[in-house]
Amino acid sequence: MDKPYFRMLFEPQLKEPIFVEGLRGLGNVGMIAARHLIESTDAKVFAELYAPYFPDYVTVKKDGTCRPPRYRFYAAKTEKNHYIILTGDMQPSLEDTVAHYDLCDEILDFAEKYGSKFIVTMGGVITTKPGNDVYISATSEKLAQKHRDKGAQIYGEGRIIGATGLLLGLAKRRGWKGICLLGVTTGFGAERGVALSVFKILTNIIEAETKEKD
Amino acid sequence: MDKPYFRMLFEPQLKEPIFVEGLRGLGNVGMIAARHLIESTDAKVFAELYAPYFPDYVTVKKDGTCRPPRYRFYAAKTEKNHYIILTGDMQPSLEDTVAHYDLCDEILDFAEKYGSKFIVTMGGVITTKPGNDVYISATSEKLAQKHRDKGAQIYGEGRIIGATGLLLGLAKRRGWKGICLLGVTTGFGAERGVALSVFKILTNIIEAETKEKD
Amino acid sequence: MDKPYFRMLFEPQLKEPIFVEGLRGLGNVGMIAARHLIESTDAKVFAELYAPYFPDYVTVKKDGTCRPPRYRFYAAKTEKNHYIILTGDMQPSLEDTVAHYDLCDEILDFAEKYGSKFIVTMGGVITTKPGNDVYISATSEKLAQKHRDKGAQIYGEGRIIGATGLLLGLAKRRGWKGICLLGVTTGFGAERGVALSVFKILTNIIEAETKEKD
Amino acid sequence: MDKPYFRMLFEPQLKEPIFVEGLRGLGNVGMIAARHLIESTDAKVFAELYAPYFPDYVTVKKDGTCRPPRYRFYAAKTEKNHYIILTGDMQPSLEDTVAHYDLCDEILDFAEKYGSKFIVTMGGVITTKPGNDVYISATSEKLAQKHRDKGAQIYGEGRIIGATGLLLGLAKRRGWKGICLLGVTTGFGAERGVALSVFKILTNIIEAETKEKD
Repeated sequence: MDKPYFRMLFEPQLKEPIFVEGLRGLGNVGMIAARHLIESTDAKVFAELYAPYFPDYVTVKKDGTCRPPRYRFYAAKTEKNHYIILTGDMQPSLEDTVAHYDLCDEILDFAEKYGSKFIVTMGGVITTKPGNDVYISATSEKLAQKHRDKGAQIYGEGRIIGATGLLLGLAKRRGWKGICLLGVTTGFGAERGVALSVFKILTNIIEAETKEKD
Repeated sequence: MDKPYFRMLFEPQLKEPIFVEGLRGLGNVGMIAARHLIESTDAKVFAELYAPYFPDYVTVKKDGTCRPPRYRFYAAKTEKNHYIILTGDMQPSLEDTVAHYDLCDEILDFAEKYGSKFIVTMGGVITTKPGNDVYISATSEKLAQKHRDKGAQIYGEGRIIGATGLLLGLAKRRGWKGICLLGVTTGFGAERGVALSVFKILTNIIEAETKEKD
Repeated sequence: MDKPYFRMLFEPQLKEPIFVEGLRGLGNVGMIAARHLIESTDAKVFAELYAPYFPDYVTVKKDGTCRPPRYRFYAAKTEKNHYIILTGDMQPSLEDTVAHYDLCDEILDFAEKYGSKFIVTMGGVITTKPGNDVYISATSEKLAQKHRDKGAQIYGEGRIIGATGLLLGLAKRRGWKGICLLGVTTGFGAERGVALSVFKILTNIIEAETKEKD
Repeated sequence: MDKPYFRMLFEPQLKEPIFVEGLRGLGNVGMIAARHLIESTDAKVFAELYAPYFPDYVTVKKDGTCRPPRYRFYAAKTEKNHYIILTGDMQPSLEDTVAHYDLCDEILDFAEKYGSKFIVTMGGVITTKPGNDVYISATSEKLAQKHRDKGAQIYGEGRIIGATGLLLGLAKRRGWKGICLLGVTTGFGAERGVALSVFKILTNIIEAETKEKD
């Protein structure tokens, strides 16, 4: 295995699903927000992703069973939208740029097969004053401006590292539209409060006004 | 050579061989236990594995002859089982995750060609209180529970790093069954005592009850 | 994406364009000099280069929009010459030699498609005494000697690191001709003064006497 | 360029040439010994090797001309033997094991095309007491024993790092015969004295008794 590998569990029937990413990262904001979305939409795992860029260990559970690191794709449908939700409890080493680019591009290829053209990435951004502030970045100025009214402030002049940034940037290059929601974190522990805020704003943006989301 | 390379010495006749791994690692527990198995079963080397992920030096023996780093595959038959035993005196750098994933997958491909569907990996686990305790992890809860009676305790909630963990995890993903036996070590020197315990439990599990090993 | 990727914006009509490189680097001399050339020739972006060797983040602008790291190719025509100008605000990690070789070779392939056979690379060279000195290296002694009269001194016995050096060296191996202009820098901040000198000498050399540039 | 690349200067007519390696390394023993052989046999450069594993800079000479890092292959004929001599003034980073394995295997493929089946690698070995001692390692005990009479001592139980070791080890795996000559060095500066000893023993072994060198 020298390339990412997708393992299908079942074939979901989705129509232009919104692709939502929430992986382990700063304050685990994205991962926790993704879990909220998975629970609230009753989403089902339909695919797993294994990759040689993931850590070379297995995780052992309390019952003694083990599994290698993986990302999981969930499928969900609400009255207004179809979703593909990506989550996972680790990321490749930040220094391994080829790993990040290759994974992100394979993931976008995968989501495109199901018709995705809109992406929401979720993560944390380091701050020295904790709180529940949420920042937004987007593939266009129009999108960024529009959603600042929903509780998120414009994230101006900075960098978004890892999958949360790169997935949005590479999706934009493919002609997708999308946004990134960043909850502030001091970088210590799991930021459940701001992760909930991120989830609420996500719902507010996506579920409230699908028809006009671009 | 930018990919792993197998060099065949002879073609063994094996039927559903149990694949056993014991490489150099923590306390060298796995490597020493593998040697016990090789000796007790009178196993013969039938293949060597070279890889660009191995260290870039050659080892020189007392007589002045040299050889590059390699893994070796041994074939053995007992009254109850056929075996493929993998051993070697180094591993790739732990940071090089692609090396570990690529090697482990190539090794499982290789063993699958001979019909392997059951794996036993052996290694060490760091502890602060030395002893002869052996822990077990498995591809299913049933397997883990079953063998705890043979002298091994359940290894619950942790990680198993390197080939010992990854071979088991990737084998599980392919639908194999298998177990991992971990001998406790302080991480200093070669742990001959606990390696012997691992070997004995292995024999107890595999040789005693082949017919019902799953 | 595990290889560099070119995204075309439009197809320029160029005849034997001089290929000019100025990327972010020591004192940003090359990047600033390239910007001077882009402005003075009214050059237009016609292609973007994305690569898995670039940093794994996106850059966010004041208006909240984001984009992944990229190099840009500009096309320009003056009375005397056609140009392809390469610029970008980062480079791969210096330790990642495969990244540098692969990028430089892909870039030269790209420029060759448009008929480029002459290269000018621009960068900085560390000095302890700041000033506006500019050094020249070239693919032949004749070229180096000829242009020392235009205000650049011969850069004798040293190394030129990164794309500024490697593009020139790999172009030479392909049979191209070319020069490298290095402005002195203390390595701190952006050296606007010496970058302007580099730009002026470039213009002096290339625009003044195209017909006899080899 | 993501793979090694050979550039031919002319096609030499060689018959079972002895392949001799002397690259920059510990005390530069191998590189200096190779230069002695090149001069004494009046060898001619017939090929260059470029690789993405080499450093990403160009070297500039006094006259201002530059070139990328490269290895060079020389062809020579004496009354008794034909030679291919490999030399170069750098090596890939020791940490990059794939670089070393890939380069060494490509180099052996290249030499095999000309009929090489015997290899001599030359390098340095760190010692705390400087002198002119030369150690020998070989592909077989017979070869090692035979040549200890020519002034070299058996190098017993150790490692030979980099191309000097790996070329010999990988050549042995292909069924070649060969030896490694290691001159002692304190690791500081260029060890001209012991490099000359290595060259003399090489000549003594290879030129004196070709017919029975195995």
